[in-house]
Amino acid sequence: MINKCSFTGYAITSPSAWSSPKLIECDAVPFGKHEIDVKIRYCGVCASDLLTARAGAGNDGWRETIYPVIPGHEIVGKIVRIGGLVDTSKFQIGQLVGVGVLSATCGSCRLCHSNRENYCPDLVETYNSKYPDGSRSYGGYANYKRCHRDFVFPIPPVLPPEHAAPMLCAGLTVFSPLRTAGVGPGKRVGVVGIGGLGHVAVLFASAMGAEVTAISHSPRKQAGAAKMGATGFIVITNEVEWAEQNKNSLDLIISTAFANNMPLEKYLQLLDVGGQFALVGVGEQNLPEVPPGILVGANKSIVGSMIGSSRQMRDMLEFVAEKNIRAWIEILPMKDAGEALRRLSQGDCSYRFVLKADI
Amino acid sequence: MINKCSFTGYAITSPSAWSSPKLIECDAVPFGKHEIDVKIRYCGVCASDLLTARAGAGNDGWRETIYPVIPGHEIVGKIVRIGGLVDTSKFQIGQLVGVGVLSATCGSCRLCHSNRENYCPDLVETYNSKYPDGSRSYGGYANYKRCHRDFVFPIPPVLPPEHAAPMLCAGLTVFSPLRTAGVGPGKRVGVVGIGGLGHVAVLFASAMGAEVTAISHSPRKQAGAAKMGATGFIVITNEVEWAEQNKNSLDLIISTAFANNMPLEKYLQLLDVGGQFALVGVGEQNLPEVPPGILVGANKSIVGSMIGSSRQMRDMLEFVAEKNIRAWIEILPMKDAGEALRRLSQGDCSYRFVLKADI
Repeated sequence: MINKCSFTGYAITSPSAWSSPKLIECDAVPFGKHEIDVKIRYCGVCASDLLTARAGAGNDGWRETIYPVIPGHEIVGKIVRIGGLVDTSKFQIGQLVGVGVLSATCGSCRLCHSNRENYCPDLVETYNSKYPDGSRSYGGYANYKRCHRDFVFPIPPVLPPEHAAPMLCAGLTVFSPLRTAGVGPGKRVGVVGIGGLGHVAVLFASAMGAEVTAISHSPRKQAGAAKMGATGFIVITNEVEWAEQNKNSLDLIISTAFANNMPLEKYLQLLDVGGQFALVGVGEQNLPEVPPGILVGANKSIVGSMIGSSRQMRDMLEFVAEKNIRAWIEILPMKDAGEALRRLSQGDCSYRFVLKADI
Repeated sequence: MINKCSFTGYAITSPSAWSSPKLIECDAVPFGKHEIDVKIRYCGVCASDLLTARAGAGNDGWRETIYPVIPGHEIVGKIVRIGGLVDTSKFQIGQLVGVGVLSATCGSCRLCHSNRENYCPDLVETYNSKYPDGSRSYGGYANYKRCHRDFVFPIPPVLPPEHAAPMLCAGLTVFSPLRTAGVGPGKRVGVVGIGGLGHVAVLFASAMGAEVTAISHSPRKQAGAAKMGATGFIVITNEVEWAEQNKNSLDLIISTAFANNMPLEKYLQLLDVGGQFALVGVGEQNLPEVPPGILVGANKSIVGSMIGSSRQMRDMLEFVAEKNIRAWIEILPMKDAGEALRRLSQGDCSYRFVLKADI
């Protein structure tokens, strides 16, 4: 199978079939001297998978999808083949490694040269993307993944592979703004949306020593958030003045929610002077209007952050191993990827699905 | 006059009389051991003066104004009286000093203790504000100003007093975000709005070694901006795709415009990866909606900044003296304050009015 450069995966073939993946054969990108082939063991299920799968199906899509698409960018597996220019002191056959959202970048622009390759204009995403030679990229709901060595990351031995998987997108995406903001003891961190990304943000910020407040529409998430390390909980509801009651109480908010109609002005009210609202979840609607005075009068900021750099990925995996952090996962066989997507679309997920390879 | 604690100034007595100040007597805050009295020589005219003067007059107001109000928070003059607890090695009778937007803060909160006293919740502004004892504050369209020593700043001897005046609000307000963002050689800085604040931002960013682009609705401002040091000029117009043509070309934008209907999304397009939009001008309308992807996909941010700290004021005055920077001013006698406000409201100002005391 590797020789004929074709892998097998669960693909979404059209927007309307977003929850009914079909097993297909797909051509992998040609194997180059920098490539590594990974036999997949686990793959996490991200909200991006869902948004990509159903792009164009009503109002729930996201961006353009090239069907058939094999989703999945939280891939963990064992190395089965190594290109001629891959450093074998770093990568060996049989080693447990991970692949996240990126599979390649240009490697030569100023962003690639300054540890910001996650913003490279020519990046190739792990799925639903194209290589410069026109080859398509396919994700981790599959038996194999081929990836450039720069985007293959050794998994620390103490970390079970199924728990490593959600770290590769959800983990990195929230680690990047937490670390960039210098989160540690004394920082008051709010996390909006206690789902796949948000629950990892609570775990991370808490392990960093911060005082963490979970912010959610669902009161039923309070007990879980407390177990993850949140000492505060704010319920977003029309019944109480939650923003007014908690104003100026946070230094940083990590917003992981993909929902529309974000109460941005109220989130900004929660921030203290100099506070930052870091947006990592992207919904389909615009950010709403806000009065400029709320930013100017208290030196508040809104910043966007996408995934994280390879350097941050390595830092994050080390941090997770050192702090012994485990995402809260539910494991399903990979053939049930459609059920995972369907349940995720209904919010029936506590807190990350991980697919176990069965092909 | 000082003995009876009453000063004389040009006051706006009602919203409709915003351009017809009347000479009035007003009670100064009681003279305490930390107070300094300044005989005013010059006072700059800020857009805030105009917005405060006509608050409530149609749609052009800003925030609540307590009439009568004596505007002016770019005050330069000579010390005539010093309180018993003022350090006389720092302040002497006859010394040339300045007073900016703030006249007092609480002095004891964590913001006051961390060089962010410009965000102290109990700050007393130089005009249209109240002291804890109920006394009102009055600004610099007057013969004297009484101020707490912490907000009185020695003017470097090389700086002419009339040129020092605009530095105390306009200068500090733009210096703070430029310095906080680490502007220097290699940084590409855009300045939106080439008026009182904006022209100082161009002068400063240029003197810091940055590559500066002026951004304005008025093509007629191009020649002046070039003389101030701008090497780029972007005209905001409906005729050309100015944002698309200049996308990703700036690292920092200082937005000084008070105008409504800000094309925020287009300004964000001008920023490169990691770029920051720093808002210092506050209009009356909300910031418009923006697509979240424009922030997230390129790590862009929007930050608000208000005035600057006392520490930054001292740094700024030193910088202005060292770089020999002069604001572009037009001097009017203080009795013509109404004309200055009227011309400012019509955009007929190149680039800062400074009132010369005549009382």
